[in-house]
Amino acid sequence: MIPSKEEVFAAYNRVRPFVHQTPVLTSHLLNALAETELYFKCENFQKMGAFKMRGAVNAILQLSEAQKNNGVVTHSSGNFAQALSLAAKNIGVKAYIVMPKNAPQIKKNAVKGYGGIITESQSTLKAREAAADRIQTETGATFIHPSNNTEVILGQGTAAIELLKKHPDLNYIVTPVGGGGLIAGSALAAHYLSKKCQVIGSEPFEADDAWRSLQSGKIETNQTANTIADGLRTNLGDKNFPIIKKLVPEIIRVEETEIIQAMQLIWERMKIAVEPSSAVALAAILQKKPFFENKKVGVIISGGNVDLKNLPF
Amino acid sequence: MIPSKEEVFAAYNRVRPFVHQTPVLTSHLLNALAETELYFKCENFQKMGAFKMRGAVNAILQLSEAQKNNGVVTHSSGNFAQALSLAAKNIGVKAYIVMPKNAPQIKKNAVKGYGGIITESQSTLKAREAAADRIQTETGATFIHPSNNTEVILGQGTAAIELLKKHPDLNYIVTPVGGGGLIAGSALAAHYLSKKCQVIGSEPFEADDAWRSLQSGKIETNQTANTIADGLRTNLGDKNFPIIKKLVPEIIRVEETEIIQAMQLIWERMKIAVEPSSAVALAAILQKKPFFENKKVGVIISGGNVDLKNLPF
Repeated sequence: MIPSKEEVFAAYNRVRPFVHQTPVLTSHLLNALAETELYFKCENFQKMGAFKMRGAVNAILQLSEAQKNNGVVTHSSGNFAQALSLAAKNIGVKAYIVMPKNAPQIKKNAVKGYGGIITESQSTLKAREAAADRIQTETGATFIHPSNNTEVILGQGTAAIELLKKHPDLNYIVTPVGGGGLIAGSALAAHYLSKKCQVIGSEPFEADDAWRSLQSGKIETNQTANTIADGLRTNLGDKNFPIIKKLVPEIIRVEETEIIQAMQLIWERMKIAVEPSSAVALAAILQKKPFFENKKVGVIISGGNVDLKNLPF
Repeated sequence: MIPSKEEVFAAYNRVRPFVHQTPVLTSHLLNALAETELYFKCENFQKMGAFKMRGAVNAILQLSEAQKNNGVVTHSSGNFAQALSLAAKNIGVKAYIVMPKNAPQIKKNAVKGYGGIITESQSTLKAREAAADRIQTETGATFIHPSNNTEVILGQGTAAIELLKKHPDLNYIVTPVGGGGLIAGSALAAHYLSKKCQVIGSEPFEADDAWRSLQSGKIETNQTANTIADGLRTNLGDKNFPIIKKLVPEIIRVEETEIIQAMQLIWERMKIAVEPSSAVALAAILQKKPFFENKKVGVIISGGNVDLKNLPF
């Protein structure tokens, strides 16, 4: 039911030449504040600025030559649009990206800059899916879902593999939970690489679909998602939820103020630029201090693509 | 007249256990933009967030035991206040810091957080010097100047030594020029470690005292210094100017808009938080593209202590 150890390691070797081995940073000050040992895996330094590069690379590399010739297509207004564009360009494949008409120009420019071919649609999910369907029919391109795709999940897990190879004695890895690709991939990595390391999720109260899904045992959705962590507003899917259900013991929910405080701490103390979604993991650790106290805790810093003109502090 | 090779290397070995060996980052995008190969030595990740830690450590370690027992004193409202406080604390020495009454509370708190003992004074240089004199008389503490002190200069140069040990084939190292400690130390490092590497200075047009000093052959001062690069408003001194005059072939001046643009590029592209003073070096490289074209260029990112509530973009 869940991908095998061989599949997990094959993805690691496949993705490796196409991504940065991002650094793991530590901070005495944040360790003192959290009363634990934190190891930050900095995917904000990844190509295009987020871990999503890994999943996009793996998904494209797993296509047949015939499929590669026809290109790939996705709908996203976030990091996956940029990731698929850049991964496709670096592998020599066309990427069709469906973006809502009202997406910020800065995001459209980023996708264009990485060579993605943009099709604009209305902003409803239905309209975006219809546009992607039409592109598939017209071009034969393969649809790659940003998070609910086994190859994407395996690709996203390679950040945790790198982290565990460098720090094999971690007790926990904390990741944010959006569509579920990163946490599912990370959980697989920990499952096969470590006897003791557990992967813990973190998400905003304002978009706590994953927490509710673990409670109910089925995929729950968000009616609203008024969170600053814009990467975490999406729902889990049938490819990643079974993995999360089996391997992730807990998801911690955090308030918006906790996210902003954690983000400011990371910027001020670690001198790195991170997205609000990245700060959700540190916010969870600071909220549940007794749980993490005196442990070794990995944190996946998911990305650093943030509008500097619109910081929350 | 200038410190010897032995003194330069002795400082490197002395300082090493007390500072972070900061990472050297690269960026494909910035390389493409500058049409050269850039190697960013990230002293924003240094302890207390700036290269100044290095000089403070070296100056304190060179004191006699009797001097150490009486502590050290300086006047600064910037990074050197924090650097001397933390270096002194880590070596087990008292640090007296004279700060102007009107210095931002956030800076006073940072100094206190590192264990510095603050004496407030009026904000004129005269009042600050008088307060430091009084502390020397009362406590027997040794005065450490933030930039015009040979041991401080040797300490600041250790960042360039680390950079050249990692990348021995650099053609240039570009540093910002404020009080002159960093560029003098870096120039000594390049002089003794490399046959070909030259150190180039960069400073704002609004505080171009070092450029004018190289032109006239004597230390010039700034009448005004309306630059966002607040670390670069100070003048050279009689300890560092002879080194700069002998070893630094050129200082490049940049406009305020160029500083802000370079700062934004570093934040957005490299995902790191840097001070305006740090961006002056990249601004100089982008301004003088033909000069640096197709060369290997080291850049000292001097620090990352910046007020996130007051970014210029």
